[in-house]
Amino acid sequence: MPQYFTFSADYLRDFTTRVFVHFGVSAEDAAIAADVLSKADVRGIDSHGVARLRTYVDMFTIGRINPKPDIRIIRSKKSIATVDGDSGLGLVVGPRANEIAMEKASQYGSGWVSVSNTNHYGIASYYSLKALDRDMIGWSMTNTSRIVVPLWGAERRLGTNPISIAFPGLKNPPIVIDMATSVVAFGKIEMAERAGIALPEGWIMDDQGNSSISPADVYKGGLLPLGSTRAMGGHKGYCLAAMVDILCCVLSGANWGPFAPPFALFEETPGESVGKGIGHFFGAMEIDGFEEVDVFKKRIDHWIEVFRNTKPAPGHEAVLIPGDPEHAAEKVRSKSGIPLMEAVVNDLKEISKMTKVEFEVRP
Amino acid sequence: MPQYFTFSADYLRDFTTRVFVHFGVSAEDAAIAADVLSKADVRGIDSHGVARLRTYVDMFTIGRINPKPDIRIIRSKKSIATVDGDSGLGLVVGPRANEIAMEKASQYGSGWVSVSNTNHYGIASYYSLKALDRDMIGWSMTNTSRIVVPLWGAERRLGTNPISIAFPGLKNPPIVIDMATSVVAFGKIEMAERAGIALPEGWIMDDQGNSSISPADVYKGGLLPLGSTRAMGGHKGYCLAAMVDILCCVLSGANWGPFAPPFALFEETPGESVGKGIGHFFGAMEIDGFEEVDVFKKRIDHWIEVFRNTKPAPGHEAVLIPGDPEHAAEKVRSKSGIPLMEAVVNDLKEISKMTKVEFEVRP
Repeated sequence: MPQYFTFSADYLRDFTTRVFVHFGVSAEDAAIAADVLSKADVRGIDSHGVARLRTYVDMFTIGRINPKPDIRIIRSKKSIATVDGDSGLGLVVGPRANEIAMEKASQYGSGWVSVSNTNHYGIASYYSLKALDRDMIGWSMTNTSRIVVPLWGAERRLGTNPISIAFPGLKNPPIVIDMATSVVAFGKIEMAERAGIALPEGWIMDDQGNSSISPADVYKGGLLPLGSTRAMGGHKGYCLAAMVDILCCVLSGANWGPFAPPFALFEETPGESVGKGIGHFFGAMEIDGFEEVDVFKKRIDHWIEVFRNTKPAPGHEAVLIPGDPEHAAEKVRSKSGIPLMEAVVNDLKEISKMTKVEFEVRP
Repeated sequence: MPQYFTFSADYLRDFTTRVFVHFGVSAEDAAIAADVLSKADVRGIDSHGVARLRTYVDMFTIGRINPKPDIRIIRSKKSIATVDGDSGLGLVVGPRANEIAMEKASQYGSGWVSVSNTNHYGIASYYSLKALDRDMIGWSMTNTSRIVVPLWGAERRLGTNPISIAFPGLKNPPIVIDMATSVVAFGKIEMAERAGIALPEGWIMDDQGNSSISPADVYKGGLLPLGSTRAMGGHKGYCLAAMVDILCCVLSGANWGPFAPPFALFEETPGESVGKGIGHFFGAMEIDGFEEVDVFKKRIDHWIEVFRNTKPAPGHEAVLIPGDPEHAAEKVRSKSGIPLMEAVVNDLKEISKMTKVEFEVRP
C-alpha cells in the first residue's frame, strides 16, 4: 500500500503559486496557474494536479516556458479569434484565452478561440466549469503530444486530445463532460505495468501495429483511440481526436498531430515542427440567448433526475451523471484535504529545495 | 444475393421532390428535402437516402408532419438562436435552420442554432458540408428516438445522436466526420439478424441490461454507447450522446432523451412529452476570422497527406481520412448512378401508386 500524506487545498495552492513566482511568473498569473492544478486535485483528477508540478518546473528549468508571455489576439472577427500564447505556461495561456472566449460570448452570444504557441493546460474541465459562473455553456479542448495510433495505423499520430463541455443545473451540480478521445488514459497502462498485470485486449498496440496486452509495449507502440477496433467504433475515436487536433492546431497554427512538442522531459521531440507549441480551443455560449436561464437549468435538473433514475444493469447501483465522480471527490476533499502519494510529496520536497519555497509535511 | 436496380441521382431526386409536393410541401422546400436524401444516396449512406422515403410518407399520411411550416427564430442574441421548426419536415427545417447558422456566421464570425419542433433530418453531414461552400467549418448534431442504453443502465434512454463536423481542403476533398455516438448503427443489428449470425460482444443489451450477442434481443433491449463497457470507454460514448441530447433538445425545448417521439411507425411512442418534436443543433464558423482561408486549407491538405502516409497496421492498406469512403462512393455514383435494393424499389413503386407520381423502373 502506498503511503498518503494529506494537505489542505489552500496550502498546496499557495505553495504552487510561490513556485511559479520563483520562475518569474507574475503573482497574478501564478495564482491562476495554481488554481488550475488545485482544481484537478480537489476534483480527484490526481494525475493532473500538483503531481504534475514537477513537469512544469522541468519545462521552466530548460527554458521551454516563457514566464512573462504577451498573450494576444492575432486575428479576430466578432465572436471568433485566434490567440498566440507566446510560449507562456499553458495554465496561464488557457485561462486567459478562455476569458477571451467568454468575453466574446457576453458581447456576441457566443465566443470561440483557437490558441497556438501554448503547452499543457491542466484539466479540460477547468475551463468549461468557468463558463458556468457566467451562465454560459463552456467548451474546452486541447491537443497533447503523440501517443494515439489512428485506426488501421501502426504509428502514433495523435494525442489523447480531450473534449470537455459543461452545462449548469439549478438545484443539481452541473453536468460536466471531460473525456480523452483515446480508449483509456496513459496512466492506466502505467498502473498495470507497475502491478505486473496484463491489459484488456484493445487498449494498446505494439510498434508493429499489432494489438498487445503487455503494458511495456505501449512505449514503442501506442494507445488505441476510443472504440479500439473497426467493429467496435475505433474510427469514431480517431475522428474525435482528429476534430480536436484540427480545431486546436490546424486552425490556430499550432503543431498538430505527430508534430506536437512533448510535455515531459522523457518524451521524444518530433523531428519536425509545423507550427508554434501545442493548441487549445475554447468556446462559450450564453444560455440566455437560447432560453431563459432558469428554464434551461430546470430542464437540466429534470434531465439529471430522469437519467439518475434509469433502471440499473445487474451488478450496478445506478447510472451516473457526467461529472458525478468529480463532484463527489470535490465534496470530500474540499473539507478533508488532498491526499498525495509519497512519490508526489518527495517531488514537492525536491522542488522546495531547488526553489527555496518552503514546503512542510505535517504528519 | 439481393437484386439491385440502378437509377440516376437526378431521377430519384426529381421523383422525391414530386412526392413531397404531393403531400403539400412547396416546390422550393420539396427540392431542398429531396436534395438531402439524394446526398445520402450519392455518398453511399444507403440507409438514409430514398430508402427512408417510405417513412417520411408514413409520417405525412398520419399527419405528423406540417407540410407548410412557419420556421422561425423564437429567441436570439447575435451569433446564437433558438429556432422552432413548427413540426415541419426535418429535411426542410434542418436546411433552413442551418442556413440561419451560416448567415449568423457571415455576420458575427460564427453562428449556432438549436432547433426544436422538428423530426428526422437525414444525414448529419449534409449540413456540415453546406458550410464548406462558404469557406466555413460546419457542425451538425441531432437527437433521435431512444435506442441507446446509458452505461450501467438497463433501459433505453438516448438516441444514436450523431455528430458531424467538416473541414475543407485545398486540393484534397474535405475532412468529413459523421458518426453516431452509439457503438454501431441499428442497421448492423438488423443485417446480422437477417443473416442469422451472432453479434460481437459489446454491441447490444437485452431487456434485463445483460450484454447479448443475439440480434433479436435489441428490440426489447438496446444498443450500447460507443465504447460499450466501462473498461473500454462506454462512459465516453454515453457522455457524447448526452452532449448531443442537451445541445439539440434541452437548449431548444425539444423532447430529450427517452421522450423523443418516434420516427418510424413501428416504434413505440413515449408515454410522456417534455417538449416539441425532436431537436437539432447547427454551427458554422468562418475560417477567415481565424486564419487566411487558403493558409488553413493548405494546412488541412498537409494534415491529410501526413495521416494518409501513416505506416499501416498488418492486414490494412492504409489509414483512412474521415470522409474517404463517402467521397469514393460519390465519385462512382455521381457517374454510374444509385443502386437500390429490390425492397426499396418496391417501396418507391408503392409510393408512386399512392401518390400518382410516376416512377419507372428501367432495366
